[in-house]
Amino acid sequence: MPHEKKVCTVIGIGPGNGSAIARRFAADGYTVALLSRSLESSAQLTKEIPGAKGFACDVGNAASVAQAFAEIRKELGAVHTVVFNAGSGVFAALDDVTAADFETSWRVNALGLFLVAKEVVPAMKQAASGNIVVIGATASRRGAKMTTAFAPAKAAQRSFCESLAKQLGPMGIHVALIIIDGVVDLPKTRERMKDKPADYFVKPTAVADLASYLAHQDKSAWTFEAEARPFAENW
Amino acid sequence: MPHEKKVCTVIGIGPGNGSAIARRFAADGYTVALLSRSLESSAQLTKEIPGAKGFACDVGNAASVAQAFAEIRKELGAVHTVVFNAGSGVFAALDDVTAADFETSWRVNALGLFLVAKEVVPAMKQAASGNIVVIGATASRRGAKMTTAFAPAKAAQRSFCESLAKQLGPMGIHVALIIIDGVVDLPKTRERMKDKPADYFVKPTAVADLASYLAHQDKSAWTFEAEARPFAENW
Amino acid sequence: MPHEKKVCTVIGIGPGNGSAIARRFAADGYTVALLSRSLESSAQLTKEIPGAKGFACDVGNAASVAQAFAEIRKELGAVHTVVFNAGSGVFAALDDVTAADFETSWRVNALGLFLVAKEVVPAMKQAASGNIVVIGATASRRGAKMTTAFAPAKAAQRSFCESLAKQLGPMGIHVALIIIDGVVDLPKTRERMKDKPADYFVKPTAVADLASYLAHQDKSAWTFEAEARPFAENW
Amino acid sequence: MPHEKKVCTVIGIGPGNGSAIARRFAADGYTVALLSRSLESSAQLTKEIPGAKGFACDVGNAASVAQAFAEIRKELGAVHTVVFNAGSGVFAALDDVTAADFETSWRVNALGLFLVAKEVVPAMKQAASGNIVVIGATASRRGAKMTTAFAPAKAAQRSFCESLAKQLGPMGIHVALIIIDGVVDLPKTRERMKDKPADYFVKPTAVADLASYLAHQDKSAWTFEAEARPFAENW
Repeated sequence: MPHEKKVCTVIGIGPGNGSAIARRFAADGYTVALLSRSLESSAQLTKEIPGAKGFACDVGNAASVAQAFAEIRKELGAVHTVVFNAGSGVFAALDDVTAADFETSWRVNALGLFLVAKEVVPAMKQAASGNIVVIGATASRRGAKMTTAFAPAKAAQRSFCESLAKQLGPMGIHVALIIIDGVVDLPKTRERMKDKPADYFVKPTAVADLASYLAHQDKSAWTFEAEARPFAENW
Repeated sequence: MPHEKKVCTVIGIGPGNGSAIARRFAADGYTVALLSRSLESSAQLTKEIPGAKGFACDVGNAASVAQAFAEIRKELGAVHTVVFNAGSGVFAALDDVTAADFETSWRVNALGLFLVAKEVVPAMKQAASGNIVVIGATASRRGAKMTTAFAPAKAAQRSFCESLAKQLGPMGIHVALIIIDGVVDLPKTRERMKDKPADYFVKPTAVADLASYLAHQDKSAWTFEAEARPFAENW
Repeated sequence: MPHEKKVCTVIGIGPGNGSAIARRFAADGYTVALLSRSLESSAQLTKEIPGAKGFACDVGNAASVAQAFAEIRKELGAVHTVVFNAGSGVFAALDDVTAADFETSWRVNALGLFLVAKEVVPAMKQAASGNIVVIGATASRRGAKMTTAFAPAKAAQRSFCESLAKQLGPMGIHVALIIIDGVVDLPKTRERMKDKPADYFVKPTAVADLASYLAHQDKSAWTFEAEARPFAENW
Repeated sequence: MPHEKKVCTVIGIGPGNGSAIARRFAADGYTVALLSRSLESSAQLTKEIPGAKGFACDVGNAASVAQAFAEIRKELGAVHTVVFNAGSGVFAALDDVTAADFETSWRVNALGLFLVAKEVVPAMKQAASGNIVVIGATASRRGAKMTTAFAPAKAAQRSFCESLAKQLGPMGIHVALIIIDGVVDLPKTRERMKDKPADYFVKPTAVADLASYLAHQDKSAWTFEAEARPFAENW
């Protein structure tokens, strides 16, 4: 009986938030489906987490998303909770951003979430239950000098989340957005910012804790948007 | 040794959020100090919650706040966590709001929080730890036709929270704001809105759960502002 | 026939925005009433601008506001347009702000505007016409580390403006807010920031131009909020 | 000498804002270039406005934008001012929006503006002068139930404007966003909303007036974002 546990699909698996979120929802009792561009990114986690399965998916590509979710439904059942952690972006001024950069950023952050929502919402509606938790950034709220491509993509994602939350809330589906306002603690960010103390960074386990909290709130008091900001951040 | 447990001061005790928050922080292991204009409001809770103490306080009055906190410090010790739940307001258009209404709303919601912060922040700084969790409302974010007096007071409160959060975060003190975007489930609101189903209302226990969550977040990923909104709310 | 021209009341007369706004509305054809704490502030302008009259008014004091507007009505007639330019504030962290500072800032910026609105709105309603243009600041939108007292006051003012705009718009009264996001060009700011080039500063005549524009917009396309920000500002 | 007058390029020509903006900038002394998907849309205006030229352009298509601007530069010279009025969107809930709808909305509103900026900014930088005025909508600020595709596209556009404004302001280029918060007065909207009075609608000439005002503000006090909202709007 593989379908007894709820399924949580984590999109965007890396050494930081994606892995921590997968571990957390597994610990919370979910079967976790791990989506990443290449199966290499999830190989270690699928060994570590009992029952976890990896799926290759290019989230900005409609056919790839459709195939990955068809496989998830077949192998694990309907998706109860999605944590959308895909998304990165170039940081550059207008002169150094190409139309391709601008489009790629939007495909991964905004269109990707749209495609995923189209896949998972029908079953959530039927169940009158479900969560879509999205990992946003400071750029979700405002454009800055060097976020020519990234901020518009994150703003589109946030606006879509807001539209979805208003549509789907009354159907029992919780859409929530986490605004990460700081630098995530990763080997590469530590390397790049050697002068910063340990507590400068956002811990992925703390982001995972917030995602888990949001996915389990009483439906009489749902949060739509919540920051994850290091205490010492200058904001 | 009365000071072994951390002290949580809840300001604004009524049958809804205030009581639920007091019960929740008591269950979380805090000694709770209950501040309300009259001791009658907290009488039942002080019987129900072991170790809880009630203090009379008019939060918009500097002398009253000073006296209440002096008593708290003497009887229970330094305050570790404040949940500021005071605040109500008239709902009326300009013609029906007096300068006294406008001032009272500001005194309770904004000046009251300022006075409380002045009392508790010094010890929090020394401890490099502490929480100030504030119960806001939709009106904290925007003015509407009938919030001539209430919205400016809640906006001042929110702005003060933001200023405080930026100042005190780096010192290890977490300032957070809960935006209640719905009608709290109370005997009087149920009575007034008899046609609404039970799940139209925000449950005080769910607000208390969010307040408790915010007060215990890992400091690498603090939330400043989070909504508590019923799933079916039209927003 | 002193009432043939429309009356514009400018509140807060100094060498910067207040004077420029008074000159601009006089040039636009209004009779200008100049309110300032002391008549000294408007003495020069009343000589310079034909028909201008100065009135002493402590805008945070209800009796003083009532008296000043009674005089304006008697001497000049009903007020068609108000430009509310009062407001200053201490810039300090929590430790260095007293309850008196916190209150004074609110009295001048928020309560003062409320008191003025109560005086002028009845006649504007009767005329189904009128403008209330308010001079805000960056602090109107957010709290910062050093705006413990100033930002809550400006946030209250902004929220009140929004509430008023929603209430009064349908009656033909335009409420608008100018967010000055920069340093106003004044002898004292030039002195304090000698290293800054001339174009670092916001020109009072440009603020006055925006205030005049807002007061004369076609009612099918009113602006509620508009920034006045120097082109080189880092925001 | 065809290049003596400044060139204003209006993108998105219809019977409403686009036409009014073209007429206004022509009256302001600019040579106007009119971009629309088909030359039919601008045929009448090019007859009416001396010196106006129409160019066919699919603004979401990189090659088409490149060609149109190459022609403009060749025939009229460098572009001094752009008014970006392209953009429409389907209004539907998630179930009724396809990935193609979602993408089309983004292409026209966000990518289109990016492509135009890439074309015009180099010459503006050289001139240390220029304007990019963008026509946004309520959806630029928030997502709603029926703006599944439209709001994310307008949010991306707004975020891009903000990023551009911060980057280009110090170079003397003014980027501004008009938020139209109402229904534009068009034959088709009048037909659809026959029960509404004339003053329910936003007049295109008033939007054009605001666009013109923003394009001519003193650079010491630029506005980034301004609403165009009918006085009676319920907001």
